[in-house]
Amino acid sequence: MFESAEVDHHISKDDYEAAEAELREQLLEAQLALREGGKQTVLVVIAGVDAAGKGETVQLINTWLDPRHVHSFAFDAPTDEERERPHLWRYWRALPPKGEVGIFFDTWYDAPLTAFIEGEIDAAAFDRELERATRFERMLANEGVVLVKLWFHITKKEQRQRFRELEKHKLTRWRVTKRDWKNLEKYDQIVGAAARAIRESSTEFAPWVVVPGQDERYRAVMVGRALLDALRNDDVTAAPAETNMHPVAAIDGNNPLRALDLSRTIDDDDYDRELEQWQGHLARTLRHARFRDRSLVVVFEGVDAAGKGGAIRRVTAPIDPRHFGVIPIAAPTEEERARPYMWRFWRHLPRRGELVIFDRSWYGRVLVERVEGYCTTADWMRAYSEINDFEEQLVEHGAIVVKLWLHIDMDEQLRRFEERKTSAHKKHKIGPDDWRNREKWDQYERAVVDMIDRTSTESARWNLIEANDKRYSRIAVLRTICRRLDAALRG
Amino acid sequence: MFESAEVDHHISKDDYEAAEAELREQLLEAQLALREGGKQTVLVVIAGVDAAGKGETVQLINTWLDPRHVHSFAFDAPTDEERERPHLWRYWRALPPKGEVGIFFDTWYDAPLTAFIEGEIDAAAFDRELERATRFERMLANEGVVLVKLWFHITKKEQRQRFRELEKHKLTRWRVTKRDWKNLEKYDQIVGAAARAIRESSTEFAPWVVVPGQDERYRAVMVGRALLDALRNDDVTAAPAETNMHPVAAIDGNNPLRALDLSRTIDDDDYDRELEQWQGHLARTLRHARFRDRSLVVVFEGVDAAGKGGAIRRVTAPIDPRHFGVIPIAAPTEEERARPYMWRFWRHLPRRGELVIFDRSWYGRVLVERVEGYCTTADWMRAYSEINDFEEQLVEHGAIVVKLWLHIDMDEQLRRFEERKTSAHKKHKIGPDDWRNREKWDQYERAVVDMIDRTSTESARWNLIEANDKRYSRIAVLRTICRRLDAALRG
Repeated sequence: MFESAEVDHHISKDDYEAAEAELREQLLEAQLALREGGKQTVLVVIAGVDAAGKGETVQLINTWLDPRHVHSFAFDAPTDEERERPHLWRYWRALPPKGEVGIFFDTWYDAPLTAFIEGEIDAAAFDRELERATRFERMLANEGVVLVKLWFHITKKEQRQRFRELEKHKLTRWRVTKRDWKNLEKYDQIVGAAARAIRESSTEFAPWVVVPGQDERYRAVMVGRALLDALRNDDVTAAPAETNMHPVAAIDGNNPLRALDLSRTIDDDDYDRELEQWQGHLARTLRHARFRDRSLVVVFEGVDAAGKGGAIRRVTAPIDPRHFGVIPIAAPTEEERARPYMWRFWRHLPRRGELVIFDRSWYGRVLVERVEGYCTTADWMRAYSEINDFEEQLVEHGAIVVKLWLHIDMDEQLRRFEERKTSAHKKHKIGPDDWRNREKWDQYERAVVDMIDRTSTESARWNLIEANDKRYSRIAVLRTICRRLDAALRG
Repeated sequence: MFESAEVDHHISKDDYEAAEAELREQLLEAQLALREGGKQTVLVVIAGVDAAGKGETVQLINTWLDPRHVHSFAFDAPTDEERERPHLWRYWRALPPKGEVGIFFDTWYDAPLTAFIEGEIDAAAFDRELERATRFERMLANEGVVLVKLWFHITKKEQRQRFRELEKHKLTRWRVTKRDWKNLEKYDQIVGAAARAIRESSTEFAPWVVVPGQDERYRAVMVGRALLDALRNDDVTAAPAETNMHPVAAIDGNNPLRALDLSRTIDDDDYDRELEQWQGHLARTLRHARFRDRSLVVVFEGVDAAGKGGAIRRVTAPIDPRHFGVIPIAAPTEEERARPYMWRFWRHLPRRGELVIFDRSWYGRVLVERVEGYCTTADWMRAYSEINDFEEQLVEHGAIVVKLWLHIDMDEQLRRFEERKTSAHKKHKIGPDDWRNREKWDQYERAVVDMIDRTSTESARWNLIEANDKRYSRIAVLRTICRRLDAALRG
């Protein structure tokens, strides 16, 4: 969930000033149109970890927009009046009319999150509360409320640093309380619960936007853009295809893919040694008694020519062919086209004690189908939660799900394409499609980043594999699978 | 949930034969169109209590349709193969392709229902399972699967009678097992759990159809019509406004309203005595210490001129005016129109220890707004669950919700309209709208019946008040409120 937010983001002062000037003008214009239209309320929901810049950002929004038509509410401990009504009453009461902007701090997510983190409710009850939040938001969206849900995120390290800095100065010391330091200790629980909340309540009509909190300027521009999208959203009740509700792209161009160190290599001796070591490890683990009640689902996705095929062969080499299957996913067959999208993947799920490798997978919907327009925006937007639901079912049933993204850069891809053109036995591996996809590199990159942010979950996270050096990537793939297996079977 | 199903339904043999002949032709035609279109799968989900005619109906469907393109599956104990995959795998595996019809017995509702009835999971976990079912169905619906979910219902008495009859005959004796008799004892729990399941999983894209099981012919025609609607549904992914997914109307015209005995009256002495008695009871109860932490929400709905105003005055007469409010719901104000539909009701919720009476209510959306076309079909279809969610929040927070439908027949309404025209002090109470609504009597009746079926829940059921005799209805209203209060405060 927080992959993109944890990548280093930064905007220079000059860039910020230019971006801000433009944003302010656009925001004011859009706010005026919202008021004149009088058809929608824009409701900004502010949540996130402490010291990630929530308060500062809201102050900024108030300076950017015409503040007479912005209504901010912080929902602390409920008043007597509020306690005597169902808990949503306070939010209903504060809801601004159409044409106006509302900013809500500490909303309906707060109580369930706290209760779950404190262990007062279990996962089932937490999910139910999240589902209720979703139902509430669906109704609001259907009734003309455009929701902008912002989750402010910083890493634990950054949070600690912030607290220390704030404590250093007289003027800001009061802002760090004992409770803050206590929450820092619970950082992992808090962020784990948040990831679950974001996953369960990111809908096509009200997706969460994770705002990286570390860089003040970056954060501001990102929030401004999300707000602008919402203000300009003409018809929230329309299918997402016709709205602006899709993910907000990174502004500085940095993302988890670009943050990879693709220069990593491995030397010959190490490669031979590690290959043998990990293949042996894998073979032994899959034969272990503990694996008999489990199954393994490995998903290979990656840039064209990233070396998926070679990596898959290194994984399957040491395994008894009766216990694994490799499912290449290309264009669907006729009988697959006659069923819902996910049918073709369900049919290949492994039995207990078995391994299935998907060479490309259900992620096609949010990658190639999204970029090439083979499905509507609504289709790929809802696919994130469909995929999360699917993988959750796999994991709950005891499957171990390992998702691998093999990544190479454009230069390396070009080198491999050229090599394929000239090499006799690789000629069949390159065609006009590959060159076309290459032209859409940026669109694919954005789709991959959104995919990682929205489907990297507690139980089935994405592993990004640096693959410019094929041998390095093969070892990384084997090691990742083995470690995931070890962790899952140890428990 | 089962109000309409528990009304006596019957179709004569002649009527049935005519209806069946027509249905068969239409069904075959629609099935052919489905096959030729090749865009949708029609999936019939069969559920319900034992001996309510599930098996017989499915056999009938198979004789009505071209059976080569109908695929029936009963999901008993899972096989080894199935147990080794997530539990939805068996349904995915059986899913027929587009153009075909599937009939599924004992589906994804079965395990959660059983677990909840047996006390193995709590309400939160049950709700989560229902929500998962809903998510699964939403995805299917988005992918071209038209779901027809049939819940077969008979009363406990009917079920006992059925079992006895089956046991009497040699040829059918085997059909009644020990488990059936044991389930009969648990009838109330089973039906209670079913009501919850139906409420939580009746969505605008896949609503449950409750089939009254007692009359074989009625049941058959109802199922046939529901199936026909589904087969003819051109585009399941369209908004419900453009689909056939709305409630199936009663076929014999009988419904909970027509089953009322409107001839009930009360004589003068009894009226005076009972009025005093119940008013005193009400006043005492609302002053009782136990009510201090609770609140009371009374909803008055009813046919025009059914006597809501008079009844409300009898309720409020004995109560301290500082502790109650009467909220007349007419056309929304400007500030109400600028917010989501439910806002105008939320704002009037009572504090603890208080009583609020809604003179007409949020049910306007599924009554006048539906019939007059003030909102889209999608709007009123989703309103059922929005309303159920709303009332659930009220009840969970400690409010006691009493919903009253005051009913008179057309003759009595005419008499009262004429009286209003001629009486000086009642003239203002009658206008052209009233006469217009009267012309739409049947449409309103259908909307009321759907409302009762879909929003009469465990915690907030509808009370139908026979109101041809005004005084009888006033006593009935007071008595209903008092008894509900007593029951709620006793606990």
